[in-house]
Amino acid sequence: MNSEEYRNESLEDEIRSFFDSAPPLRDSVHFSRKLDDFIERHSSPSGDLLFVFQSGNGSCGRVVCVTSGGTTVPLEQRCVRFIDNFSSGHRGATSTEYFLKAGYAVIFLYRRGTCQPFCRSLPEEPLTECFEYTEESNIQVRKSYSEAVKSAVREHCAAIEKGLLLKLPFTTIFEYLQMLQMIGLSMKSLGPRAMFYLAAAVSDFYIPWKSMAEHKIQSRAGPLDMRLVQVLKMLSVLRTEWDPLAFCISFKLETDFQILLEKADMELKKYKMHMVVANELHSRKEKVVVVTDSGNILVQRDWTQAEDVESPLVKLIVERHSAYIEGSDS
Amino acid sequence: MNSEEYRNESLEDEIRSFFDSAPPLRDSVHFSRKLDDFIERHSSPSGDLLFVFQSGNGSCGRVVCVTSGGTTVPLEQRCVRFIDNFSSGHRGATSTEYFLKAGYAVIFLYRRGTCQPFCRSLPEEPLTECFEYTEESNIQVRKSYSEAVKSAVREHCAAIEKGLLLKLPFTTIFEYLQMLQMIGLSMKSLGPRAMFYLAAAVSDFYIPWKSMAEHKIQSRAGPLDMRLVQVLKMLSVLRTEWDPLAFCISFKLETDFQILLEKADMELKKYKMHMVVANELHSRKEKVVVVTDSGNILVQRDWTQAEDVESPLVKLIVERHSAYIEGSDS
Repeated sequence: MNSEEYRNESLEDEIRSFFDSAPPLRDSVHFSRKLDDFIERHSSPSGDLLFVFQSGNGSCGRVVCVTSGGTTVPLEQRCVRFIDNFSSGHRGATSTEYFLKAGYAVIFLYRRGTCQPFCRSLPEEPLTECFEYTEESNIQVRKSYSEAVKSAVREHCAAIEKGLLLKLPFTTIFEYLQMLQMIGLSMKSLGPRAMFYLAAAVSDFYIPWKSMAEHKIQSRAGPLDMRLVQVLKMLSVLRTEWDPLAFCISFKLETDFQILLEKADMELKKYKMHMVVANELHSRKEKVVVVTDSGNILVQRDWTQAEDVESPLVKLIVERHSAYIEGSDS
Repeated sequence: MNSEEYRNESLEDEIRSFFDSAPPLRDSVHFSRKLDDFIERHSSPSGDLLFVFQSGNGSCGRVVCVTSGGTTVPLEQRCVRFIDNFSSGHRGATSTEYFLKAGYAVIFLYRRGTCQPFCRSLPEEPLTECFEYTEESNIQVRKSYSEAVKSAVREHCAAIEKGLLLKLPFTTIFEYLQMLQMIGLSMKSLGPRAMFYLAAAVSDFYIPWKSMAEHKIQSRAGPLDMRLVQVLKMLSVLRTEWDPLAFCISFKLETDFQILLEKADMELKKYKMHMVVANELHSRKEKVVVVTDSGNILVQRDWTQAEDVESPLVKLIVERHSAYIEGSDS
């Protein structure tokens, strides 16, 4: 066995052991049925809910899995404490809106409680903040929120009812990776028409389920020392096993710009991503750098159009995805 | 200096150093003004918004500060990762409803995104799940949610408009303790009519702001070792300095019942609480044990009345608070 083979074998072992030792996913049968129905609906070119891509080559329904929000890492099996990754889910929710506009069907794999598509301009507690009780014992939308609430409900309902948006919530790193695996295996049938847009903030470190304390960690004993191990880079498994033909975009977030570009470039090469979107924490709503094999592309928000940075970003990605599909056909 | 004096001096130093080194609270002027207005409105017996307690001794407006949800502990100054404490905020939100029913004015100090008073029976995403878009281009509540949405908006608006409910959100342990300190100092003027109902899940460990990494912790370097130090038990400062006359109830949550009772009893004595509510993680919606100086009281949900465990719990606490106020007058 040469060293490359050895590395692969040992990665496979580690992956098997991660999934074997993870707590079982709740409702996995129900989840899997919903997912397969969604994929099937978008896999046949004749389906009337389908986006038929008018690019001359007759390629049809495209599906993107947008991941959004941060994962948690439990520190105790009967979970009281956990480590969380900061992410509002704004990037994923906004991008979902633009992918829907571009004709994609979207699987929105999101952290519970984070930002939802079409709801970005609403306050944190929309029900109690946007509505009021009238003298006629009815509830009504407060005038200042009237347009925002109306368009949120309209757009959201339309996407769900047309079967173009499937929303799947997660909380822990275990749930996220288990669901991503199921989605990858299910989307495989779509070939190059599948896309992964991995905007979720996935934990780098975790405590393996089996080495976790069963009960709550006690605080009397002075300082708390913890050892966390690195989360396996499932990107490589997604690319090589779960769905090798899908177009894959991953995200890097850092607070230091130099480290950011280095890491994005490393990720592109190491995991054979098609694009890596590099975000710097404080400027990420204004601009991002898209790192590709053929060079880096700066994508900036167009202030004159009052649009989001996700608008040119998704436009660029859709163009590259089209070229990728055409390239695969030939 | 004897050892007791030394301990106090060193605690005071530690507390000063905690607040001095914490990042400054945003909007603290605005926050402080809202708080003082609220307290003032409920401090004069002649105010028409006031609950005048009909106990014969003529005591008036009572105010309870209900804390709710978990605090986060940032691991980096430009916060990407943090440790979080699990808490839905259900206990605090439900108790707030019962305190309002009992005539109290409530300061609801809650973790952003957790459960809100009167909204318990609604789904996670009320706006997109409870409403639909009609053919006449309007939005309306889906029939199955009609009563729940109506009563949530009605009760919530009524409490806010009557000036009986002040909602104040926090996220980090630093924000929580800074806000609790301001509330304590402000409620001091109410004497024994003030109550603290400390249902929030406050982190036991934290990383002092000044010893925190400025940039995101890098994951290349293998396993991550962290050292967290214990959060000072601010309960003792609340009792001895911020608001010594207030009636104080704290909460203990554990997964092991024996450890739970021991720790609740220890907390009662050490921090001179008036009551400690002991919760076991998996049975906490059915029953709690209230630990007091005069013995433990089991409080159980009354299934025949289809009520919450918070109903008898708040009833018991209000009775004890009445006795405490009467005792203080004599």
